[in-house]
Amino acid sequence: MTTTHSASTIGLDTVAELAAQLRVDSIRSSTSAGSGHPTSSMSAADLLAVLMTRHLRYDWDQPRLPVNDHLIFSKGHASPLLYSVFKAAGVVSEDELMNGYRRFGQRLEGHPTPILPWVDVATGSLGQGLPDGVGVALAGKYLDRLPYRVWVLCGDSELAEGSIWEAFDKASYYRLSNLVVLADINRLGQRGPTDLGWDLPDYARRMEAFGARVLSVDGHDLDAVDKAMTLAGETAGDQPTVILAKTIKGKGFSEVENKNGWHGKPFPQDMADRAIAELGGVRNLVLRGPKPESAAPGPVPDKPTTLPQEQSGDASRPSADRPEYKVGDKIATRKAYGDALVALGARDPKVVALDGEVSNSTYADEFAHAYPDRYFEMFIAEQQLVAAATGLAVRGYTAFASTFAAFFTRAYDFIRMGAISGVDLRLSGSHAGVEIGADGPSQMALEDLAMMRAVHGSTVLYPSDGTSTAALVDAMAQTPGISYLRTTRGGFPGLYPAGEKFPIGGSKVVRSSGSDQVTLVGAGVTLHEALRAADILQGEGIAARVIDLYSIKPVDTETLAAAAAATGGRIVTAEDHHPEGGLGSAVADALLGAGQQGLHLTCLAVSGMPGSGTGDELLAWAEIDADHIAAAARKLVGG
Amino acid sequence: MTTTHSASTIGLDTVAELAAQLRVDSIRSSTSAGSGHPTSSMSAADLLAVLMTRHLRYDWDQPRLPVNDHLIFSKGHASPLLYSVFKAAGVVSEDELMNGYRRFGQRLEGHPTPILPWVDVATGSLGQGLPDGVGVALAGKYLDRLPYRVWVLCGDSELAEGSIWEAFDKASYYRLSNLVVLADINRLGQRGPTDLGWDLPDYARRMEAFGARVLSVDGHDLDAVDKAMTLAGETAGDQPTVILAKTIKGKGFSEVENKNGWHGKPFPQDMADRAIAELGGVRNLVLRGPKPESAAPGPVPDKPTTLPQEQSGDASRPSADRPEYKVGDKIATRKAYGDALVALGARDPKVVALDGEVSNSTYADEFAHAYPDRYFEMFIAEQQLVAAATGLAVRGYTAFASTFAAFFTRAYDFIRMGAISGVDLRLSGSHAGVEIGADGPSQMALEDLAMMRAVHGSTVLYPSDGTSTAALVDAMAQTPGISYLRTTRGGFPGLYPAGEKFPIGGSKVVRSSGSDQVTLVGAGVTLHEALRAADILQGEGIAARVIDLYSIKPVDTETLAAAAAATGGRIVTAEDHHPEGGLGSAVADALLGAGQQGLHLTCLAVSGMPGSGTGDELLAWAEIDADHIAAAARKLVGG
Repeated sequence: MTTTHSASTIGLDTVAELAAQLRVDSIRSSTSAGSGHPTSSMSAADLLAVLMTRHLRYDWDQPRLPVNDHLIFSKGHASPLLYSVFKAAGVVSEDELMNGYRRFGQRLEGHPTPILPWVDVATGSLGQGLPDGVGVALAGKYLDRLPYRVWVLCGDSELAEGSIWEAFDKASYYRLSNLVVLADINRLGQRGPTDLGWDLPDYARRMEAFGARVLSVDGHDLDAVDKAMTLAGETAGDQPTVILAKTIKGKGFSEVENKNGWHGKPFPQDMADRAIAELGGVRNLVLRGPKPESAAPGPVPDKPTTLPQEQSGDASRPSADRPEYKVGDKIATRKAYGDALVALGARDPKVVALDGEVSNSTYADEFAHAYPDRYFEMFIAEQQLVAAATGLAVRGYTAFASTFAAFFTRAYDFIRMGAISGVDLRLSGSHAGVEIGADGPSQMALEDLAMMRAVHGSTVLYPSDGTSTAALVDAMAQTPGISYLRTTRGGFPGLYPAGEKFPIGGSKVVRSSGSDQVTLVGAGVTLHEALRAADILQGEGIAARVIDLYSIKPVDTETLAAAAAATGGRIVTAEDHHPEGGLGSAVADALLGAGQQGLHLTCLAVSGMPGSGTGDELLAWAEIDADHIAAAARKLVGG
Repeated sequence: MTTTHSASTIGLDTVAELAAQLRVDSIRSSTSAGSGHPTSSMSAADLLAVLMTRHLRYDWDQPRLPVNDHLIFSKGHASPLLYSVFKAAGVVSEDELMNGYRRFGQRLEGHPTPILPWVDVATGSLGQGLPDGVGVALAGKYLDRLPYRVWVLCGDSELAEGSIWEAFDKASYYRLSNLVVLADINRLGQRGPTDLGWDLPDYARRMEAFGARVLSVDGHDLDAVDKAMTLAGETAGDQPTVILAKTIKGKGFSEVENKNGWHGKPFPQDMADRAIAELGGVRNLVLRGPKPESAAPGPVPDKPTTLPQEQSGDASRPSADRPEYKVGDKIATRKAYGDALVALGARDPKVVALDGEVSNSTYADEFAHAYPDRYFEMFIAEQQLVAAATGLAVRGYTAFASTFAAFFTRAYDFIRMGAISGVDLRLSGSHAGVEIGADGPSQMALEDLAMMRAVHGSTVLYPSDGTSTAALVDAMAQTPGISYLRTTRGGFPGLYPAGEKFPIGGSKVVRSSGSDQVTLVGAGVTLHEALRAADILQGEGIAARVIDLYSIKPVDTETLAAAAAATGGRIVTAEDHHPEGGLGSAVADALLGAGQQGLHLTCLAVSGMPGSGTGDELLAWAEIDADHIAAAARKLVGG
C-alpha cells in the first residue's frame, strides 16, 4: 500500500513510520545487493526522516530548481539510506531500489554520484562532502543570493579528516549560516571505535572553536531533532550550524545495535527478515516535505575582506578583450593567466576565481581586484580550494582555482572525485618544474602532469607564451570535466601573434622546413629551450622541426605522427617534469597507439632530485636545456 | 669576533644578542642570495634564540644521537632563520651562509632538506612538518622510549591546512607530551592577512579543543618565552603543548615590521644595511645550549586501545617464516600483505605498521594483533598516516602504511615530500581498480600507478598472487625511498611455488613457447585475465607469451624487449587503471627508451568512468578481461 502525504500533515508519528521504512529499505536494498552499509544507514535514518518531511525545501520533480535546498551525503557509504529517501520521495521505485542498487549498469551506485539528478556531488571518499557543501553554500550566500540551505550528512569517522576542519574554518570565515551539518555520531568506524567515540562535548568544543553553532541532540529523538532542524534552518545568524546527533549504529535491530563488526556488511537474508520484523515490516509511504518558495536574488552581502593591500598586476579597468602580447616581449604565463581571467570575467559573469593564499604569485589577484564579489580566498587549504570550486561548479559557476602546481598534489583526491562528480573544474598551477630555481624541490611541481593526465576525462594544457595562455584560458571556460593549466614562473618571449588559435587537442609546428631531420617537442619552458636547440643544430647544418605541445591531453597525434614520418622517426621530447607520465609519455603513448613505426624517441626529463639554483642552472643540471636537447637530437641524427 | 658560551652561562641578555644575530644573519643570507624570506624568519628569531640556548637538548657534533631533541621547521620558508641557528651553533660557517644559501649545488637549499644532518625532514609544503613531528614523537614515546622532545616551528598561515588538525588530533589521542609546537603568529601570510590574524584566543580555543595544552606568550618577550619553554619541556603530562606566540613579521626592522607586501622578499642591499644597523650590526656569537643526557629506553607506556574487537586474519602465534601459499589456491594479495607483514615483524623488531582505519580490509590488523606495541592506528586521516610513517622512518623504523589504494591520493603531497626528505616509506594500497566491483568509482584506485611512478626514486610493485606478494613485502623492507605495493580485493589462484624469487625490477615469464606470436603483459588481476586469454588463444592455435610485470617501476626492460623481439613486436598490455601513466606507459616508455623497433603495442586500460557491478562485469565493461585481451592479441597477430 502506498500512502501519500503532503507537507502540512506530516506528524511525528508518521515521521517515525517513515524512519522505520528508511531502515527497512536500507536493509532490504543492501541484502538484495549482497553488499552495502545498512548499519551506517540505520544510525542516521531518524535524522533523514525528520529532514525530508519537515525541513528540506525541495521540489523533487524539479531537482535543478535554483531555490531548492541541497542535500549532500558526505558519508557516501550510507547510500542505502539516501536511496531509501529517494524511494520515500517517490522518485526511485521499489523495483529500482531492490534490483538496481550496486548492480552493473544501474544508477544506484555503491556510493552516490550525480548520475542521479538529486545528487550534487560524488561522495565515498570521506571528508569531501562537507567541503563541497561549503562551496555550494558560498554560491548560495554570495552569488546566487538565494535562501536555500545546504544540509550535509557527515559520519563521525570522517571528522578525523583534516579537510573537514578546512571546511569548518572556511564556513565560519565566510559566515555560512546557510550550511547545516548533520553529524551522525554513532561511535563506530569500519574496524572499531572512532577516535572520540561518543564524546559529544569534545566534538562540540572542536566545532565551536572552529566557529560553528552546535546543537547537540539525541539523534533518535524525533522531536529533539525536529526542533534542532527548525533552529538550524533559520539562516539569520552568521555561523554554520552543526546538529551533533548521538546515534546508535544499527539502530532499530537489536542484534546489531551498537555492535562492532557490522560495518559495511549487509545482513544475510535470515537476519534481514528478523530485522524487518523487529522494525514492523515493509512500508511504502511516499512523503514529500515542503517545497521552496520562489525567490529573487537578495542583495550582495558583505564578505570578509580578503584582498591583499598590494596588487601584482595592472590596476586598470577590466576589459573584456582577450589580452594581447607582442611576439618577442617577455611575459610569464602565470601573468597571462591572471590577465586572461580578468578579461574572461568581464565577458561572463558566471566566471569566478579562488586561490590558496598565493594569488600574488598565480596572478589570480588581478581577478580578485577586478571582481571582489566573485573571488574567494581559500587561504592555505588546497583541499577546500578544490572542493569550493566543485561546489561552485555544482551551482553552475565557471570556477577557476589556482595555486602553485606543486600544491595541487595536496588535493589530488578531490580532483579525482571531481571527475567522478562530473563537474567542470578549471585548475591553474603556477611555478612548475625546476625552472623556478632558488626555492628548491618542495615548490617544484614535477609530478603534476602525470597526476592530471591520469584523471578521467581530464584536459592538460601547458602553454609557452602569453598569447597561447590567454587563448587556452578562454578554451578552459568552455571545456567540460577537469581542465588543468600549467604555468611557468619566469618570463619568456612571446611566440605567437594576437588572434592565433589554440584549439584543445592541437599543437603548433613553430619551426619546420622541407628537410627536417629531427623533431623537438617541448612545452612551457622547454619549448623555448627546444627553439634554442634548433638554432644550435641549424648552425651545424641539422634542420630541426619544433613542436609546441601546448595540449598534453588530448594530444595532437596527427601532427606528431606527421613529424615522426617527416623526420625519420627521430623525436626528442623535453619536459620540466619527472620522466614518468608527463609530456614524453603522452608523445610515446600517442605514437605507439597510432601504430607509428620506425620511432627513435629520446625523452628528456628531470630524473634527479633537484636542489636550489637559478632556473638556467637547474635546466642544465636536469639535462633539459637547449644544449642537452641539441645533443640528444645530434645523437639521433648521427645514430 | 667569535664568542663561545656554554649552556650554563647563557643569560637572557646574551640570548637577546643572539636573537639580533639570527635576524641580521637571516637578512644577510637572503639579501646575498637575492631570494628568501627574511621577515618570516625575523618573527620567530626570539623563539629560536631562547630554544637553542636554553631548551633544545642537542649535541651538534652528533646529530644522529638517539637522545637528541628534534627540531622541525614546519614553516620551511623560514630557512634563513634555521641556517642562522646552524651558524650560531657553529656547524655552518659564515662563508657557507653567505655564499651557499639557495645557490646551485649547495646544501643550504631554499627550503630545508635532510641533506643537512641537523634536518629531519624536508619542509616547504606547508602543514607537513607538524604531522611529521607527530611521527617522530610517536617513535620517541612508544618505540624509542627516550626522553627527547620534538620541537616544531609552525607558521600561522599553515594552521589553515587540515593536516595540522589531523596532527593535533593524533598528538592528543596518543598523549604526545613530548611534542611542543612553537606557533609563530605573525598575522601576515604571503598575500595578506591570515584568516584569524592576531586572534590568539581563537587559535587557543581550537588547539585546546583538539587536546593541546596552550601557553600564550608575547613571542618577543624572552623571559616569557623562556618560562613557557621550561613548562613545555617538562614532558610529564599527557598532552602536546603549544607555545602560542604573538609575533611581528619583520620584527627588529622598523621599516617592514607588521607591514604587508614583504613576504618572501629579500631586502635590497640598502635596506639590508639599514636593517642591520638598526639591529646593532653583525655578530658572530657561537652558542650551544644543553646537551642531552644519556638515557636507556623507558618502560613501554600504555597506548590508547586501537585494536578492533574482531580480527580479519589468523589468530595464531606470529611466525618469522614467510607465509606460503599453494599454487592454485585462491588468496587475495591484500591478505598475503598482512600475513607477510606479520612474519617480517617477527624477524625484525624495527618493522612497524600503520593504517587509516581500514586495517580489517588491508589486513594490517594481523600485524596490529600480533604486535600491538608496534602498530599505530591513524583513523581516517591519510595525510597524517603518511606523515607518521615519515616521522617513524626518521627515527630508523621500517614503517609500512596501508589504506585503500584510492585514498593514498589524499596524501600525494606527503608522499612527494617524503621523496624529497629521502625517507624510506612502504605504502600498501588495497582494493585497486574496477575489480573491487560494487562499491563504485570513489573506492577504485585508477590513478595510483601513475601517481606513484611519478614520485622521484619510487618503487612500484603490483603482485598477482600470495607468494609474490609475500616476497615483495620482504623486498620492500630492504628498499630505499618510497615503495608502493598495489594489492587486489578479490582472491586469485596462486601462481608460484613457495621460495620463488621476485627481485625488484624483475618480471616473470609465466607462459612461453618457442613459437609465441604475441606477448600479453599484466599484473594483479589482469595477469590472471591474460593467462585466461592465452588459453583462449591457444584454442585458436595462437601461442601467447605471458609476462607478470610485478615490478612496474623499475621495470624489466630486458625481458620485455626479449619478448617483443620473440613475438614480432606484438604486445598487449592490460591494466586495471586509467590509460595514462600506469603499466602500459611503463612498458611503452621502457621499450621506446631501449630503442626497440617494430613494435605493435596495444594498451588496454580503464578508459571510461566505471559504476558499480561485479568485478567480472566491470573487467569486461572496461575491456581488460580475458576476452578483450584475446581479441586485442588476435587483431595484432592477424594484422
